[in-house]
Amino acid sequence: MWQVTKQDLMDLAVGAAFLGTGGGGDPYVGRLMVQAAMDEGKTVTILDPTEVPDDVLVIPTAMMGAPTVLVEKIPSGEEAVASLRRLEKYLGKKAYATMPIECGGINSTIPLLVGAMTGLPVVDADGMGRAFPELHMETFSVLGVRGTPMVVTNEYGDCAIIEARDDKFMEWISRGVTIRMGGAAYIAEYAMSGADVKRTAVPNTISLGIRIGRCLREAKTNHENPIDALLKMLPQTLYSYGRVIWRGKVVDVQRETKMGWVLGNAKIEGFDGWKGVMEIQVQNENLIARVDGKVRAIVPDLICIMEAETAEPITTEYLRYGQRVVVVSVAVPPIMRTPKALEVFGPKGFQIDEPYTPIEQLA
Amino acid sequence: MWQVTKQDLMDLAVGAAFLGTGGGGDPYVGRLMVQAAMDEGKTVTILDPTEVPDDVLVIPTAMMGAPTVLVEKIPSGEEAVASLRRLEKYLGKKAYATMPIECGGINSTIPLLVGAMTGLPVVDADGMGRAFPELHMETFSVLGVRGTPMVVTNEYGDCAIIEARDDKFMEWISRGVTIRMGGAAYIAEYAMSGADVKRTAVPNTISLGIRIGRCLREAKTNHENPIDALLKMLPQTLYSYGRVIWRGKVVDVQRETKMGWVLGNAKIEGFDGWKGVMEIQVQNENLIARVDGKVRAIVPDLICIMEAETAEPITTEYLRYGQRVVVVSVAVPPIMRTPKALEVFGPKGFQIDEPYTPIEQLA
Repeated sequence: MWQVTKQDLMDLAVGAAFLGTGGGGDPYVGRLMVQAAMDEGKTVTILDPTEVPDDVLVIPTAMMGAPTVLVEKIPSGEEAVASLRRLEKYLGKKAYATMPIECGGINSTIPLLVGAMTGLPVVDADGMGRAFPELHMETFSVLGVRGTPMVVTNEYGDCAIIEARDDKFMEWISRGVTIRMGGAAYIAEYAMSGADVKRTAVPNTISLGIRIGRCLREAKTNHENPIDALLKMLPQTLYSYGRVIWRGKVVDVQRETKMGWVLGNAKIEGFDGWKGVMEIQVQNENLIARVDGKVRAIVPDLICIMEAETAEPITTEYLRYGQRVVVVSVAVPPIMRTPKALEVFGPKGFQIDEPYTPIEQLA
Repeated sequence: MWQVTKQDLMDLAVGAAFLGTGGGGDPYVGRLMVQAAMDEGKTVTILDPTEVPDDVLVIPTAMMGAPTVLVEKIPSGEEAVASLRRLEKYLGKKAYATMPIECGGINSTIPLLVGAMTGLPVVDADGMGRAFPELHMETFSVLGVRGTPMVVTNEYGDCAIIEARDDKFMEWISRGVTIRMGGAAYIAEYAMSGADVKRTAVPNTISLGIRIGRCLREAKTNHENPIDALLKMLPQTLYSYGRVIWRGKVVDVQRETKMGWVLGNAKIEGFDGWKGVMEIQVQNENLIARVDGKVRAIVPDLICIMEAETAEPITTEYLRYGQRVVVVSVAVPPIMRTPKALEVFGPKGFQIDEPYTPIEQLA
């Protein structure tokens, strides 16, 4: 059990942008909201999953919608709390803690805001181990925790409690509700026991985000190469392998907000000895990187585009022509690479007609 | 208190098509479902609103969606029962009775099916006094009963419980859910006390539907003109005035299923001394009838298109080129003509830029 500091928050905003692999919304907005709550004297307590009793109720909280909308429609923080409270009432049981459903992007910070506003601790774990565009793409779901009943709430207190035949249909219905609520809404879903948290979550991903941010920051302070420092630090975590897969200049960005997502692709012309053009396909997140049609990295392994000079992770909505970037790919933990997990959030889950090959084997 | 007979059902199917003013879905499908339940020995009990105790809970049930979808996606009957049961559970209180939300179209029969399957009585009243295309267009809502919490269920048991800032936003969100459920779903909404039923509902509209059907049937048996007989019978009801406003041949029908509704218009070239072309604008229901730009009848008064030979009411989805028709307009009860009611389901409620003029004054 530990308390989040303001420095942790700033590091997390950077680390969560990295783990967001382009998607999940800008964590900067979430960071500011949590910081404002802390400035009012509120605190955020983080629990290691091993500290959560088996028989308590944990209710994850998150924002749902297109990142391009999230940056224009900033929440008060009450929305996600309202979703959690409604789900507690529906289940007839109080939550012991909240938790992220994804550790990339703004959703790494929304549960911290809920924690600050309610006093509930936040479990240091999540169900995506990164960011994904759809709500059924969760280790929770893969390992048998049901996403429903789920609550969707907006800033006007409008609300839908959803029960669905499966988590994919939950995604379908709640996405429709979110679109009609203006493209961004706040959810509580995958309510589960402490025992299920330990069994199904990717552990220590909030602290991982903080460690990534801190590592990049400290390297810059020490005049080391931040990306080298990051790649050296990662093997101490569950994300045991990473490497640079491209350096180049962004020469083309196609992006549209459609069906509630940001869809598009980016082309990066190589430099510094990297010859050719890397093409990265995006559905909120970076899904697959190819050079001349050859796969260089593929979902669910992380594909992170970073500013070449500053090593700042670049989210999809800020990607633009002329940026000089480094592309890093990182291996995800074994819980995310099982055949059942890959069915849901491997290439097949995104209608990508390529087999999954771990980044270590694409070397 | 009385029991519905098979003859009542057949008469109701005709009367509800008349009161549907083109919309509300084909009552024929609903009639067959109730009849099948009666063939299995089930019964349907109707309660006069005055027989409902003040302090009991009444939960109206209905189908939601585009009539063009309803005729292709026939329900088992369990869907509407599931919505009622979920709303009971959410409210923590058992329903004493169910009730229609509209007395036109298939929704006049769905509550009878729920009554047959659950044994609950059905209150002889509704909240539209006809059919309307949107869920906030209810005397219930106009007179202060809240539509939410509302339940939407489909044939797979998927479900959304909706809370909304107002009944118009409830319509917006639940329409989105219905579209994602395939264009037709089953709802329970406007849960209210017996006292509120008496205060806010249009009374005796199930029996009105049966009377209309019976009147047309008996006139045909007695070789009288059925439309004349109907216009003679109406003054004995709350629908105190009606007359023929056009006779002619359908020369053009435009119709598309869009945003979850059937939108379009029909042109009817006059004959038998009716000179000119009547144009009727449709949003599921017939909203306004004009000849040479001059209004001949306008919502919420009824505009009913009937087969000239048989006096069968014609629903929007069966309207087609070449039909020879009689158009009848009928005054709705005073509870539907108050300034507050006209704000919601008068011309303004449909973005029609014409003042409301009662059919009696357009004579």
